[in-house]
Amino acid sequence: MKIALDAMGGDFAPEAAIVGARQALDLLPEVSLVIVGHKDKLAPLLRDNGLARCDRVEVVHAEQTVMMGEPSTASIRAKKNSSITVAATLVSEGRAEAVVSAGHTGAAVAATKVRMRLLPGVDRPAIATIMPSQSGPFVLIDAGANVESEPINLVQFAVMGEVLAKIFLGITNPRVGVLSVGEEDVKGNDLTKEVFKHLSSMPINFIGNVEGKVIFQKYADVVVCDGFVGNVLLKSTESLAKATMFWLKEAFSKNTFRMTGALLAKEAFKELKEIGDYEEYGGAPLLGVNGLCIIGHGSSSPKAFKNAIRLASKFIKYNLNECLAKRIQETGADAAKLKKT
Amino acid sequence: MKIALDAMGGDFAPEAAIVGARQALDLLPEVSLVIVGHKDKLAPLLRDNGLARCDRVEVVHAEQTVMMGEPSTASIRAKKNSSITVAATLVSEGRAEAVVSAGHTGAAVAATKVRMRLLPGVDRPAIATIMPSQSGPFVLIDAGANVESEPINLVQFAVMGEVLAKIFLGITNPRVGVLSVGEEDVKGNDLTKEVFKHLSSMPINFIGNVEGKVIFQKYADVVVCDGFVGNVLLKSTESLAKATMFWLKEAFSKNTFRMTGALLAKEAFKELKEIGDYEEYGGAPLLGVNGLCIIGHGSSSPKAFKNAIRLASKFIKYNLNECLAKRIQETGADAAKLKKT
Repeated sequence: MKIALDAMGGDFAPEAAIVGARQALDLLPEVSLVIVGHKDKLAPLLRDNGLARCDRVEVVHAEQTVMMGEPSTASIRAKKNSSITVAATLVSEGRAEAVVSAGHTGAAVAATKVRMRLLPGVDRPAIATIMPSQSGPFVLIDAGANVESEPINLVQFAVMGEVLAKIFLGITNPRVGVLSVGEEDVKGNDLTKEVFKHLSSMPINFIGNVEGKVIFQKYADVVVCDGFVGNVLLKSTESLAKATMFWLKEAFSKNTFRMTGALLAKEAFKELKEIGDYEEYGGAPLLGVNGLCIIGHGSSSPKAFKNAIRLASKFIKYNLNECLAKRIQETGADAAKLKKT
Repeated sequence: MKIALDAMGGDFAPEAAIVGARQALDLLPEVSLVIVGHKDKLAPLLRDNGLARCDRVEVVHAEQTVMMGEPSTASIRAKKNSSITVAATLVSEGRAEAVVSAGHTGAAVAATKVRMRLLPGVDRPAIATIMPSQSGPFVLIDAGANVESEPINLVQFAVMGEVLAKIFLGITNPRVGVLSVGEEDVKGNDLTKEVFKHLSSMPINFIGNVEGKVIFQKYADVVVCDGFVGNVLLKSTESLAKATMFWLKEAFSKNTFRMTGALLAKEAFKELKEIGDYEEYGGAPLLGVNGLCIIGHGSSSPKAFKNAIRLASKFIKYNLNECLAKRIQETGADAAKLKKT
């Protein structure tokens, strides 16, 4: 099982990537890594982590790195030799089965789309994030691969999200909902109303619109939205979780009683913090590209890199892409078919 | 100071509305209420709350109520005698200065827009919600008055939000940001990019794009977005807060140590719960209509109604609408001027 690691992407790269790679190799004996990045920067890190002469590690040089402020198209225009583009090319050439990157999300989407191409019948890829709720995890799709979407895209995202909920979360008949501003089919914007119509006639467990106000009480197993909304939702959730920990700390340090209380319940706080911890999965799959791609969090730690590599290995085992392509055909979400209706 | 109360709107109306009205009258000696609703349903409640013969209360009969499942246009088409439409008409006729409603949001927006009309230079109204953050409250605008918006609308929302932050939150030179998926001006969708351009050239303290990931750490005092995104953000925040309290309870009841801890810090939990409590303000102003309108939360309690009435009285005192209209002209956000550029 060969996984290409973009070692240059992420706030703490390449250090965090290499330490994470070491941890992943220790944990997953079936995995080999193709580490992509600038060879001069990687050499000392590989040596320090005992990977310089490891037979499960291949290093591929990439001269460039896409920086956060650059446009998404940098990976396929100005910087064709960037680490993410080289990694995506390895997958397209069959030299690796998946790519893991914690770099510029837009650049990763562009590079994988252009180099790996899309699954048959899929118009656009989408990022599927696993989110926590009161009654277990659910899939949010699209969490930010696209800033503008057509109804046909969201219909395909719904089907791909359904497959992920089945395979990865083990939900037999996932309830699929469209994120909107009201429950009834008349509520929403032009995009959601159109998607509602399409999904209503498809052989999936479509439960209609899902409102923000019940999302974390888990009304649906798959919540479908356009990437702009999904990204704002995902990121602001993270921001609120951070603020909540701040408020808790503030409230619990107001007097000795409360501080004693906090001390007694120290483990409870730790558990709370772990609920929304992105490091647990390490990243989110970009579904719809013809080859696997895991998008890591910008501030990925070694642990996050390790888990992102593990996630990629799981999807390889599951034959995720075959399942996606099959289900797209089966449900009639295929681009050509949908456009006809 | 006369305020029209839609007594039929909200999950717990008319009971909660009338009890809240009584509390508001006790608290605010300068306020008189015009209570709008079905007279047969109101009569026993008014009697029980000592408002049947109160000289600061006038009752206006409304035969109908817009129900939650109905389209927004019900208030101005099928149900012209609904409580919200009658209340809005009172303001347009000068018989009240503001309307307070916890009913169907879309119906309230439609009724006030049609009956009261818009402020000079404003194309569409927007709901401005006060949200908590680590460093104090900020304004989120539009929180759901519109499901589709043009750049010109968001530009005007920005200016109206700025006025609210000045007047209501007491911030001298509010930092205004556009909610987007990246900091740089090239990041975002067509709508946000266009808004970014307009706001950059206006005499306001525009700080550029604001990402979801910093929203509750308060990067901006005014966060501008379209109503679909704003509504999803507002509602899902509420949902996450609820889930967090659930997780906290779960984590703190796992063993006796933790339970003792929770007992010692009981007040801390209470404080945490109060941070995001919508009852504190009671509602959010609909900015841009020519007359004041406070939109209450669907599940408004008597306390929420009381505070919504208080909020309306404050805005009357502040001459909010005059300030809005003046600032729209001053900044060149006037519809006619903007369309020319």
